[in-house]
Amino acid sequence: MTNKLRIGIIGMGNMGSDHAKKLARGTVPEVELAAVSEMDAARLEATKAYLPADIGYFSSADALMDSGLCDAVLIATPHYDHPRLAIMAFERGLHVLCEKPAGVYTKQVREMNEKAQASGVTFAMMFNQRTNPMYRKMHELVNGGELGAIKRVNWIITDWYRTQAYYDSGSWRATWAGEGGGVLINQCPHNIDLLQWICGMPAKVRAFCHEGKWHRIEVEDDVTAYLEFPNGATGVFITTTADLPGTNRLEITLEMGKLVCENDAITLHKLSRNEREYCFESKDGFARPSVEVSVVKAEGDNSQHMGVIAAFAKAVLSGEPLVADGAEGIRSLELSNAMHLSSWLGETVELPIDEERYLAELFKRIAASGQKATEAVLFDPQGSFGS
Amino acid sequence: MTNKLRIGIIGMGNMGSDHAKKLARGTVPEVELAAVSEMDAARLEATKAYLPADIGYFSSADALMDSGLCDAVLIATPHYDHPRLAIMAFERGLHVLCEKPAGVYTKQVREMNEKAQASGVTFAMMFNQRTNPMYRKMHELVNGGELGAIKRVNWIITDWYRTQAYYDSGSWRATWAGEGGGVLINQCPHNIDLLQWICGMPAKVRAFCHEGKWHRIEVEDDVTAYLEFPNGATGVFITTTADLPGTNRLEITLEMGKLVCENDAITLHKLSRNEREYCFESKDGFARPSVEVSVVKAEGDNSQHMGVIAAFAKAVLSGEPLVADGAEGIRSLELSNAMHLSSWLGETVELPIDEERYLAELFKRIAASGQKATEAVLFDPQGSFGS
Repeated sequence: MTNKLRIGIIGMGNMGSDHAKKLARGTVPEVELAAVSEMDAARLEATKAYLPADIGYFSSADALMDSGLCDAVLIATPHYDHPRLAIMAFERGLHVLCEKPAGVYTKQVREMNEKAQASGVTFAMMFNQRTNPMYRKMHELVNGGELGAIKRVNWIITDWYRTQAYYDSGSWRATWAGEGGGVLINQCPHNIDLLQWICGMPAKVRAFCHEGKWHRIEVEDDVTAYLEFPNGATGVFITTTADLPGTNRLEITLEMGKLVCENDAITLHKLSRNEREYCFESKDGFARPSVEVSVVKAEGDNSQHMGVIAAFAKAVLSGEPLVADGAEGIRSLELSNAMHLSSWLGETVELPIDEERYLAELFKRIAASGQKATEAVLFDPQGSFGS
Repeated sequence: MTNKLRIGIIGMGNMGSDHAKKLARGTVPEVELAAVSEMDAARLEATKAYLPADIGYFSSADALMDSGLCDAVLIATPHYDHPRLAIMAFERGLHVLCEKPAGVYTKQVREMNEKAQASGVTFAMMFNQRTNPMYRKMHELVNGGELGAIKRVNWIITDWYRTQAYYDSGSWRATWAGEGGGVLINQCPHNIDLLQWICGMPAKVRAFCHEGKWHRIEVEDDVTAYLEFPNGATGVFITTTADLPGTNRLEITLEMGKLVCENDAITLHKLSRNEREYCFESKDGFARPSVEVSVVKAEGDNSQHMGVIAAFAKAVLSGEPLVADGAEGIRSLELSNAMHLSSWLGETVELPIDEERYLAELFKRIAASGQKATEAVLFDPQGSFGS
């Protein structure tokens, strides 16, 4: 291995081609763009117009992985194929950085994690919103301990507006066979990852997912999820692709006050006393301890995807920490799977969910999916779709 | 009848005595404070220190109503007694202004409404927050039609902080026998009334009420309710008496934009196009129509209780409109009953709810209630408690 990590990118869709352009320009000094792969011949040919001539161009992920040109792969294919391709890479001793979501169902992603651990390679998730200084600060404030235990979490994250034209732009889009879900699986994996990263995993979920409520699609485009955490804290997670203008407001109430993250700023309302103690010590029924309100500065660059790639390279080259370990991919997926399952069953589900039951329910929907053409390919573990 | 409405106030607790003082000072020119009643002899005696000597003082509601001194009564007793006292007044041809909530269960309040209609007197509810110019403006904006249909309603109304000392201040407080509920029945009737006044009644409710979660009480002090409206709009209503500092943020998304009511101001985000049309006409997947953001001025006095009393008097004297008709009392109660019932049953309930089922569940809780001493009195329709 040279002093640069040689990365191959699998899938030249919107994300993959964007990453390739940036890496080819040397945006991340620790990385050398070594190869790309794309199963669509015309699309692969088109990449040559803007990428260096001396990298490897492959029509399949297998060929890229077997070329010897790469130390690591960045997987940027449709969701269903993430686990299969990651496992192929682990088996070849290649490090893996995987786009979100880690997969479509936890059973599949659990196997992916097991293979990664057995192989000993570095496995990272592209949770690029974790590089956002605001969310890093929220994580630090909530987990620093100074504010006490969490009591309530309300995240209204409805600024994911999409028109019908968006959904009509690909036959796989917003189908059970093509994506395995709607707003929860396509738009929200970052938010769900941040939620569990900042607040921990809920113990119970009751969700209300409305499928095709606002668009002509078969998957959910409107979700309200009620959450209960192991310590008794409660919360809601509200999302949609139809609100205009949407809202992105994350409010966390803790024993020592409240954090509100909205409009790219964090407001801290800090109590002079711990509410849980004050509640039982005060002699006055309506009294309240004093509150200090301040805007918390969240400093640092928001390095996004390139920051995640740089950390990935440094982790492989010199053992520095990842932005998000691959094993973390299972948590956000488990939470989104729990929301789907709860809504499908019409009942509260406990985490960890029954993965077999989730899969049986998902397969029912895939069987009835409007996207028939490619589903067999998507589900054939020996196929080469998406490379 | 003179050109002033002669009002008798039943119950000299916190609210009743405050109203009496203000009316005795002539705060509402259309009203003459004619009498007060209070079953607690010491408390009745104490009122004489600050009220005029020439009004009637009675130790029971019956005596006040039969005295001939009053044209109307203002009922300010504990909740359970509101319907019984109102019906007594209707039977005597007295007009009634009733403190919130109208009662504790809809079955009881439905009977109250029937009696009011049969009697032909004026029957009003003390929904004093409806005089708040901000909520009047919200009502006007949402119901004016210019913003189109409602798509989503999120009300985080968690600024009802109460210490344990508050709950310990009366043996009836926060008990099933004494109040018939917690934050939903004591603190939130105004918010629930405003919700249904502004947005209409939901068709379905799934609520999660936590009893004694934050205080040593037997009733709920933490509620998350998920709502579905007849047109398909969804919403949440989140409340507690333990968040500090709490939040009061009402967000309503409509076809033509979004209204956010927070920190005593309304922000209107108005679209240049109706989202429902735009969604299907746009050729671009990520495009959005332009948005104009403005702070809406809500003008006028917030006349609160005295404004409701003045409107009540003018309605009787000269036929002017009430702030809130008595029949409206049933809606907010039905919605809060639905939240309780859904949580007790652990399932989604449709409105109108099964009143008998609600009552059976409530009685179970009353039977197990820690407040035993007065429950028989509270439930005896021939009794005189609370007058």
